[in-house]
Amino acid sequence: MLLTALEFAGLVAFAASGALAAVRARLDVFGVVVVGLTTALGGGIIRDVLLGIHPPTSLRNWPYLAVCAVTALVVFAFHPQVARLRHAVLLADAVGLGVFATAGTTLALNAGATGYAACLIGMTSGIGGGALRDLLLREIPLVLRKEIYAMAALTGAVCVWVGHALSLPAGAVTTVSAAVVVAIRVLTLWRHWNAPVARPPEERSL
Amino acid sequence: MLLTALEFAGLVAFAASGALAAVRARLDVFGVVVVGLTTALGGGIIRDVLLGIHPPTSLRNWPYLAVCAVTALVVFAFHPQVARLRHAVLLADAVGLGVFATAGTTLALNAGATGYAACLIGMTSGIGGGALRDLLLREIPLVLRKEIYAMAALTGAVCVWVGHALSLPAGAVTTVSAAVVVAIRVLTLWRHWNAPVARPPEERSL
Amino acid sequence: MLLTALEFAGLVAFAASGALAAVRARLDVFGVVVVGLTTALGGGIIRDVLLGIHPPTSLRNWPYLAVCAVTALVVFAFHPQVARLRHAVLLADAVGLGVFATAGTTLALNAGATGYAACLIGMTSGIGGGALRDLLLREIPLVLRKEIYAMAALTGAVCVWVGHALSLPAGAVTTVSAAVVVAIRVLTLWRHWNAPVARPPEERSL
Repeated sequence: MLLTALEFAGLVAFAASGALAAVRARLDVFGVVVVGLTTALGGGIIRDVLLGIHPPTSLRNWPYLAVCAVTALVVFAFHPQVARLRHAVLLADAVGLGVFATAGTTLALNAGATGYAACLIGMTSGIGGGALRDLLLREIPLVLRKEIYAMAALTGAVCVWVGHALSLPAGAVTTVSAAVVVAIRVLTLWRHWNAPVARPPEERSL
Repeated sequence: MLLTALEFAGLVAFAASGALAAVRARLDVFGVVVVGLTTALGGGIIRDVLLGIHPPTSLRNWPYLAVCAVTALVVFAFHPQVARLRHAVLLADAVGLGVFATAGTTLALNAGATGYAACLIGMTSGIGGGALRDLLLREIPLVLRKEIYAMAALTGAVCVWVGHALSLPAGAVTTVSAAVVVAIRVLTLWRHWNAPVARPPEERSL
Repeated sequence: MLLTALEFAGLVAFAASGALAAVRARLDVFGVVVVGLTTALGGGIIRDVLLGIHPPTSLRNWPYLAVCAVTALVVFAFHPQVARLRHAVLLADAVGLGVFATAGTTLALNAGATGYAACLIGMTSGIGGGALRDLLLREIPLVLRKEIYAMAALTGAVCVWVGHALSLPAGAVTTVSAAVVVAIRVLTLWRHWNAPVARPPEERSL
């Protein structure tokens, strides 16, 4: 139950993140809905394909798609001023990342995957939707940009794995782990913590 | 039989659409063939992966690939004047979209998917090949641009579902539904019907 | 055994190719690792999805990921002067292409795929990782650019098929076939052999 509620919170967050990015890219209402759906459902579909769940869960149960489509339409109708969009997209994206990475790990563990595989599949289902969104809108994916991103998802997935190994209740473990991911993302965005970039070779030759 | 004939018509249309777009992007003969194959076979491979059909149908039967490769080579050799290319790509794309969305829905229904899942998988197999083509050529996918696109595919998929529920003959239902999709696409392109775009936030603050 | 050694050589080559391309694109250390991993593991994951192997091999066995991550970090730390990068990326890419195309074909044949399907799946697992790398970095994929690329992978796959049909030892067949692919790539790059491009329509009207 708690897990389902969390998953729908993640769907809303990612659908909003995709729709806001699409509005910023000046797409029409259908494009906004398509990008919102792809962002929200993409990670879960990749997860189901990797786990061999056919057809993917989100394509068999209409509430998944309905929630995402309504979210995208609401964003289209009431999208906030342009100055706020950048932060709103990043926050919604952080929540979606946290929920999908941790819920994906839990689901993979329940489906019988080993802890190692479950963490990777969870991380992938967290970063997959956002990567598809950025590919569709022809931006360099967030996951490759400056702030810690895939590592945040992986940290959340490992938290779930540890909690699972300790036999803690799955709902609580997933919620706390998702919060850890959001905290890491917000912290790195707020403090502008960046990972090191390779020194440009030109400077070396000086 | 009729279904197979339709599917091959869709393959030719999508292979031509991909090859024409690749010629316009100044790719060499191999690039043209690869984009043609990806456009024509991509949607069906995505469909088979979502339905759990291993390995995908088009990778097991050589006529699929042969038809697409020959189409791409013919397009490469005899591609029309540049002024006509834009319309030719869009028309071939509409036919491919219609055939794949409706044939994909029929195939998913036959594979035992529920009507809801079958419509989504059909729509995906319709828009998948073209989206891959546009991603490879670094264009914003047609499916996100101004004209009604994914909705046309979904309309065709729903027509198939209704026909299937009424136990009408599958071949006729698929053909008519594909024609509906092509008609919607041609109509929207001809009349320049566009879906609404979100008002830019800058104008609101005036 | 030989097959496993070959596969790890391919992983190192593709991880280095992805990491070098990411360093050239000025990504940070995490971006470099993510692109390295995607390039190295992407083709094999696509192969496993097409063959219905769940979860994909490389997500179940930690040495795959560890080798790729270490390679990417080494490249990040010691990447050579910018003038050499272009050639290094292309050579590493050729080795990865050869190994994955041929090892993928062998694996598909062992998994019971027909020769035709095995060649296509092998070719796909060879070109898949590099195509993902180029999509992530927003370059037109190498596979679509001027030099013979997909045909080299396909040639290697067909060599494996022939060797398999003649019941030659799998390890030797794969090694020799991979060398054939690398030789074709190096030769075409060195001699600047290019496939023909369609004459621009503008020139025709003169």
